[in-house]
Amino acid sequence: MLHRAFTLVAAMVCAAPVWAEGSASDQVTTFTLDNGMEAVVIEDHRAPAVVHMVWYRAGSADEPAGVSGIAHFLEHLMFKGTDTLGPGEFSQIVAANGGTDNAFTSYDYTGYFQRVAADRLELMMQMEADRMVNLRLTEDEVLTEREVILEERNQRVENDPGSLFSEQRRAALYMNHRYGVPIIGWRHEMEKLDLQDALDFYAANYAPNNAILVVAGDVDPAEVEQLAQKHYGVIPADPAVLPRQRTQEPPQLSERRLVMRDPRVAQPYVIRTYLAPERDPGAQEKAAALTMLAEVLGGGQTSVLNRKLQFETNTVVYTSAFYTGTALDDTGFGLVAVPADGVTLQEAEDAMDKAVAEFIEEGVDAEQLERIKFQIRAQQIYARDEVDRLARRYGGALASGLTVEDVQAWPDILQSVTEEQIIAVAKEIFDRRKSVTGWLMGAEQEGTL
Amino acid sequence: MLHRAFTLVAAMVCAAPVWAEGSASDQVTTFTLDNGMEAVVIEDHRAPAVVHMVWYRAGSADEPAGVSGIAHFLEHLMFKGTDTLGPGEFSQIVAANGGTDNAFTSYDYTGYFQRVAADRLELMMQMEADRMVNLRLTEDEVLTEREVILEERNQRVENDPGSLFSEQRRAALYMNHRYGVPIIGWRHEMEKLDLQDALDFYAANYAPNNAILVVAGDVDPAEVEQLAQKHYGVIPADPAVLPRQRTQEPPQLSERRLVMRDPRVAQPYVIRTYLAPERDPGAQEKAAALTMLAEVLGGGQTSVLNRKLQFETNTVVYTSAFYTGTALDDTGFGLVAVPADGVTLQEAEDAMDKAVAEFIEEGVDAEQLERIKFQIRAQQIYARDEVDRLARRYGGALASGLTVEDVQAWPDILQSVTEEQIIAVAKEIFDRRKSVTGWLMGAEQEGTL
Repeated sequence: MLHRAFTLVAAMVCAAPVWAEGSASDQVTTFTLDNGMEAVVIEDHRAPAVVHMVWYRAGSADEPAGVSGIAHFLEHLMFKGTDTLGPGEFSQIVAANGGTDNAFTSYDYTGYFQRVAADRLELMMQMEADRMVNLRLTEDEVLTEREVILEERNQRVENDPGSLFSEQRRAALYMNHRYGVPIIGWRHEMEKLDLQDALDFYAANYAPNNAILVVAGDVDPAEVEQLAQKHYGVIPADPAVLPRQRTQEPPQLSERRLVMRDPRVAQPYVIRTYLAPERDPGAQEKAAALTMLAEVLGGGQTSVLNRKLQFETNTVVYTSAFYTGTALDDTGFGLVAVPADGVTLQEAEDAMDKAVAEFIEEGVDAEQLERIKFQIRAQQIYARDEVDRLARRYGGALASGLTVEDVQAWPDILQSVTEEQIIAVAKEIFDRRKSVTGWLMGAEQEGTL
Repeated sequence: MLHRAFTLVAAMVCAAPVWAEGSASDQVTTFTLDNGMEAVVIEDHRAPAVVHMVWYRAGSADEPAGVSGIAHFLEHLMFKGTDTLGPGEFSQIVAANGGTDNAFTSYDYTGYFQRVAADRLELMMQMEADRMVNLRLTEDEVLTEREVILEERNQRVENDPGSLFSEQRRAALYMNHRYGVPIIGWRHEMEKLDLQDALDFYAANYAPNNAILVVAGDVDPAEVEQLAQKHYGVIPADPAVLPRQRTQEPPQLSERRLVMRDPRVAQPYVIRTYLAPERDPGAQEKAAALTMLAEVLGGGQTSVLNRKLQFETNTVVYTSAFYTGTALDDTGFGLVAVPADGVTLQEAEDAMDKAVAEFIEEGVDAEQLERIKFQIRAQQIYARDEVDRLARRYGGALASGLTVEDVQAWPDILQSVTEEQIIAVAKEIFDRRKSVTGWLMGAEQEGTL
């Protein structure tokens, strides 16, 4: 069976580096088809392979109320067949051509990709264009696949107290925005998802005017455009597919805290997440400062939190900071502390707060910042070697409201972040009224919330 | 101008007695028109007056995401006019006939009522039936009235830290249900409500098959039915008006806490709300036990909390318990403590928890329970003197999923609640994982959340 990735972007504490972005030196070409479908072509001729991706501007945060999980469910069902392809045949053909394929769903998008030999690109486009409009589903297929996503939820969420905890914290962080609902869906709503829900979400979101094509590898941009025109360009724009409408947060006026106890938790920890601005097109400076703040505070062994909480005081066994800037709407900036033996969650949290307050007082260590910037430059060079990741960065950014120019400007914006900007943004976002502090602990563990 | 009531049912700490219900001895007649409109007639011939009400099964919790406040906004706009009535003319005619009229919106319903001389009933029906289907609105009227509801929000919410606090707590209590969104709406969404939003909500919800007629006063049920048939019965059922679909809560696994600081707060307090079951048709026993639990714990001077926290220990200057059982979906059971001078919120909360724990240990005082039951019986007799309130109780219950039989059975169910049932329900619902504890305090007040 297929192994399809399910992306819990903001739920991850230790996210992959978010600064492994493209740059102006990438060989990137863009075009837009008459039906509104955008395209990005990334040339990389080192190997005769190609990555072909179609991204839809439709993630879990675009779902109607009551059918949580339908974006991800539809992602599964997209492999069921069309007028011309039988169930599972899509992936079988990719495999028969020596390729691999997969798909992923996040809050802001759903994406499909194949990695194949470069001369198979047209076949991929033909099949992907086919299922953009010709998906055929039966009641039986939907009922069977629903068992699969429920089992996926069991594995990924119900069996993992940390995931359940993350769901509870997100629901508390977002008062009105659908980022508070899990990508995979609430179980009680998933259990009722049916054929019509899937077809409705498909009809409302899948069309060339809501899609982004990303092709990366050993290709000629002019040829890609010609093929895209031939396979995707012939699909008319669907006027029923409307620009996304997202509910926004009201003023957050009150600090929230929550405690979850679960007998399966061996190691308690505290996470605080602050509501934080995301990368906005043409205005990424604040997000860049937040990205650097996360690195300075919690990135690796020499980070401020690690130094103050682990090396100097032995208060924690692990600490980190995280920020996910690539999002359509307000995102989160988080701090984590896993207390050392004999340290309570309250003590760990207090120490974390004290360390952050001291940091704001002391300012950014210039040498540390230079070191981080150097590492980011190095990572960016390595990242450009991974054409898959690069393709994914462009696709994810475009599906989250950014432009190719934003992606390419990002490395320089990151490098130009100053010590003062980092402290300024720290002062701005560390507002307890816009935060949720969560304690995860075992059933019998002591806590004094 | 009209003064229309805006009902913040569950936001009220000191709610009106929820047990002032009808009983089997009410002179109540019911009928249902062919188009699905239900009707309740309550005879009361002591004065030649009548209350005429139409309730729609459409409250703020029935709104689509992103247009919070539209149910209440439409309530205002329903006074603007129809094909035959000019703006404001509805209320002018009621007044010219010596009557008064008003309307109200809650989570589960919107209601319109007039109180007039009994011989004007037909005129009321004629006008109410008219605006059920013939509402006419202009862009200008909508924009002007939007200023009115925004000002209403200013007055009722923005100017009152307690109301803001209530909104923040509800948003934390409900993870997925729309009871977490305020009836009046989030300001940023209210600011964008337009003519089309109002017409859409009207089209989706206002029809005889989604309405309940309540007529109470000096009337003959057969005549009421004849008039109802003449004015409401001729309106066809609208198949586009569907049964309500509500998103439900996922498992609540984590205790939540929040703190709101506002410089306008002179007197800090703590409120904890637990998610609690509502009255269900044919199964009101648990809700009855919860109603009695709220009385035993927090109803008046001799309540358990008052005795333990105020008289015996001087910990608080005010304490209460509240429960709103009449609701379509899961509701809240709350505890409030306003600390005495020199007592911190943490101390007040700890004392409240200790008092509740002791109460569960000690059990219900049989004499106190008898006293409460006696008071409830007395109140029910007085309540039947207030025909308006009685009409409203029937309408509210029916619009919240209950039946006339449930309304009439309620007094006996309340009287039959035992000490053991009260303790059992207390043990069941006082589950911190399904609760939100809020602290409201001034900007500079001490707190150790």
